[in-house]
Amino acid sequence: MSIVTDASSPAAPEIADATPGDGLREGAFGNATGLACRECGHQVALGPHYACPECFGPLEVAYAFPAVTREQIEAGPRNIWRYKALLPVPDDIEQSRNMEPGFTRLLKADNLGRELGIDHLWVKDDSTNPTNSFKDRVVACALSAAVEFHSKVFACPSTGNLANAVAAAGARAGIRTVVFIPSNLEKPKQVNSAVYTDSLVAVNGNYDDVNRLASEIAGEEEGWAFVNVNVRPFYAEGSKTLGYEIAEQLGWRLPDQIVIPVASGSQLTKVHKAFQELISLGLVEDKPYRVFGAQATGCSPVSVAYKAGTDAIRPVKPDTIAKSLAIGNPADGIYVLDICRETGGAVEDITDDEVRAGILLLARHEGIFTETAGGTTIGVLKKLVDTGQLDPTLDTVVINTGMGLKTLDAISDQVGPAATIEPSYAAFTGSGVL
Amino acid sequence: MSIVTDASSPAAPEIADATPGDGLREGAFGNATGLACRECGHQVALGPHYACPECFGPLEVAYAFPAVTREQIEAGPRNIWRYKALLPVPDDIEQSRNMEPGFTRLLKADNLGRELGIDHLWVKDDSTNPTNSFKDRVVACALSAAVEFHSKVFACPSTGNLANAVAAAGARAGIRTVVFIPSNLEKPKQVNSAVYTDSLVAVNGNYDDVNRLASEIAGEEEGWAFVNVNVRPFYAEGSKTLGYEIAEQLGWRLPDQIVIPVASGSQLTKVHKAFQELISLGLVEDKPYRVFGAQATGCSPVSVAYKAGTDAIRPVKPDTIAKSLAIGNPADGIYVLDICRETGGAVEDITDDEVRAGILLLARHEGIFTETAGGTTIGVLKKLVDTGQLDPTLDTVVINTGMGLKTLDAISDQVGPAATIEPSYAAFTGSGVL
Ligand SMILES: Cc1ncc(COP(=O)(O)O)c(C=O)c1O
Ligand SMILES: Cc1ncc(COP(=O)(O)O)c(C=O)c1O
Ligand SMILES: [Zn+2]
Ligand SMILES: [Zn+2]
Repeated sequence: MSIVTDASSPAAPEIADATPGDGLREGAFGNATGLACRECGHQVALGPHYACPECFGPLEVAYAFPAVTREQIEAGPRNIWRYKALLPVPDDIEQSRNMEPGFTRLLKADNLGRELGIDHLWVKDDSTNPTNSFKDRVVACALSAAVEFHSKVFACPSTGNLANAVAAAGARAGIRTVVFIPSNLEKPKQVNSAVYTDSLVAVNGNYDDVNRLASEIAGEEEGWAFVNVNVRPFYAEGSKTLGYEIAEQLGWRLPDQIVIPVASGSQLTKVHKAFQELISLGLVEDKPYRVFGAQATGCSPVSVAYKAGTDAIRPVKPDTIAKSLAIGNPADGIYVLDICRETGGAVEDITDDEVRAGILLLARHEGIFTETAGGTTIGVLKKLVDTGQLDPTLDTVVINTGMGLKTLDAISDQVGPAATIEPSYAAFTGSGVL
Repeated sequence: MSIVTDASSPAAPEIADATPGDGLREGAFGNATGLACRECGHQVALGPHYACPECFGPLEVAYAFPAVTREQIEAGPRNIWRYKALLPVPDDIEQSRNMEPGFTRLLKADNLGRELGIDHLWVKDDSTNPTNSFKDRVVACALSAAVEFHSKVFACPSTGNLANAVAAAGARAGIRTVVFIPSNLEKPKQVNSAVYTDSLVAVNGNYDDVNRLASEIAGEEEGWAFVNVNVRPFYAEGSKTLGYEIAEQLGWRLPDQIVIPVASGSQLTKVHKAFQELISLGLVEDKPYRVFGAQATGCSPVSVAYKAGTDAIRPVKPDTIAKSLAIGNPADGIYVLDICRETGGAVEDITDDEVRAGILLLARHEGIFTETAGGTTIGVLKKLVDTGQLDPTLDTVVINTGMGLKTLDAISDQVGPAATIEPSYAAFTGSGVL
């Protein structure tokens, strides 16, 4: 991505010219040293900033990592804080009132592998996080930043899972939450936010409309931490823990191939960053790996650009049952393209019927009930094998980022009781189930 | 309980006069040595048996435990198999295709504690198990036994959660499953079984009718492992892991008080057994603790007997939103009474409105969305404090055994969006949410 900008443009984000640590608690961000522009490299002090004052590029957390050993990490808690040295969080983060997400199962998926023709397949199952999606990871890092910034409101625009995670984490931390969702969102995801907060706001529009509104509020209101807007650099780092865990659970080595769902593209980008950090810290051996992105055809701006061989991602109006992936204007889409191309991976998309089939594939073969986002990822995995884009002889990891009860309607008329019977043995033997 | 029986009665369960290990793989049940009658102490060989041939009392797994150290356990995997030396499973159990349940979060619940007036409160959160209830623990142990017995069908009668766990574990293990539920069960729990198995059987009747049907089928069909019927002794041991984990996560010590939901009463009984084992193995200090049972008033046969000061538990017809606890004729109810009385605890029950309030209490204060069973347990915890039955100055643990998305309807008309607005800042400031 190259953006040519005029740094004196009136729309340029204002960033106080703070020195690192200004007004902040000593060690509030661990080994983080500042925020660096992903495009031009310009550095600014740690603060609730997200866009480069020079070029509008996205800011990313920069670190000065100390030496970190496998043993240190393994001696840590059984959640994401075992990697706290690699995150923008204080050393006493475990003592904070947080959700303790992460360290979810990495399951060897031999049945599904056999079905799809993949020799060695693992599912990283993030559906067992505290609010049943990978979003608990990013929210935990955003919460730490919001607390250090003395934010008074913890907020987000969301396709559903993020709202669940923000509302829950805020309840536990005792900080006010306001979460914004498209008004047509699945009922379970609505209730699963409203149960934690009295400030769930439904917005008539799609996610991109909700996101724009959130940016506007972030600009107008003082002290609001929108996890994926003005504290996005801190939030995004949380997804690195998925990459760290996969490597540690494989016995401190990287997989050969990994398949990751793409909405804004943040997660995929950060899993790749995690792998790179592990290599440069000497925690895993340096080796090539391929990164694949998964989208639903009804919202596939990154996949379309990938297939067209272009860098220009055209925003789309989403129309898919994979609502949690329904971001038509993905902030990090361009980096997804870069990573998938550079590593020899791909971005692929599938129909809603293939999404449903993906949900059933995972449930019937591995006993994991995923939501539409996971159905998308599994379905894309299958398509990648069928089309020869993925090498079935290489070690492959697929990430399940969410949970089936949140998108029940997507599948509920496809499965059900085989029979409804009277409570007698005769009724059972006559039912045809036997 | 005292049952006077005639061992030669024609209805006496037939048990092959096997010596331990007959037809079974060496070490198939780890350190288990046989099955012992809980009533008369009569021992039989390990096998798919559940009732004493002498007195019809329930059989329990007996062990010859080796010395076990904290260090050995801590070096184990981050799931229930870290306690495999204390379970009826083979030493290579981690290599089996299982769900890898357990080692869920024990969260310090300061907000909820403050709200209820309890100084030191922890929530053991089993809602993040693979199928989102504690049932994954018991099913993992039952599955191991079913595999060792070369069972051809893995089955259960269920109030919902057990069916989810059995169907999922069977899918992953590649063994045929048939699961039986009351036909009026919540839709999410039905779909959450049907997604894994094509043999979900809905039965017109309540759980006790379903249970009777299952016993009949178990008696008629060869090679069916009904997890909570004919392999119940193995199944039940899985609940001990909740007790082990709580003690380990508290830093290898027992809590002073613990509140546990009661359906059949198996879980409560086995958590107590776990605490006793830890004491006798020298893994924790011997000290008194009080065990409390929680029921919903609409199905409270154990609580009624407790309050009446009697041992006679009268079966009831359940009528409560806490469907997962709706067992009107609880198999282990008598042992629940014994334990709660002996330890100085109690059994208490609450109304359905208090169940709903309990769900919201936990969500708003700790960011955990529980199902009606958890609402029951939290609501009873509150009542125990309010009525002076629980000492608010003592270290108290409450178990959350299930997950809110499975009983969405119980709460879905009580919470929702605070406002539905157009995507503009003006609409937001005018919405009253700010
Ligand atoms: C379940 C699930 N998976 C994947 C994603 C994609 O995340 P990202 O925006 O980081 O690409 C989301 C985003 O909301 C999600 O909810
Ligand atoms: C969520 C939940 N909690 C608690 C229980 C009680 O279990 P037990 O039958 O061991 O008393 C059940 C039983 O189905 C359950 O589903
Ligand atoms: Zn820049
Ligand atoms: Zn007996």
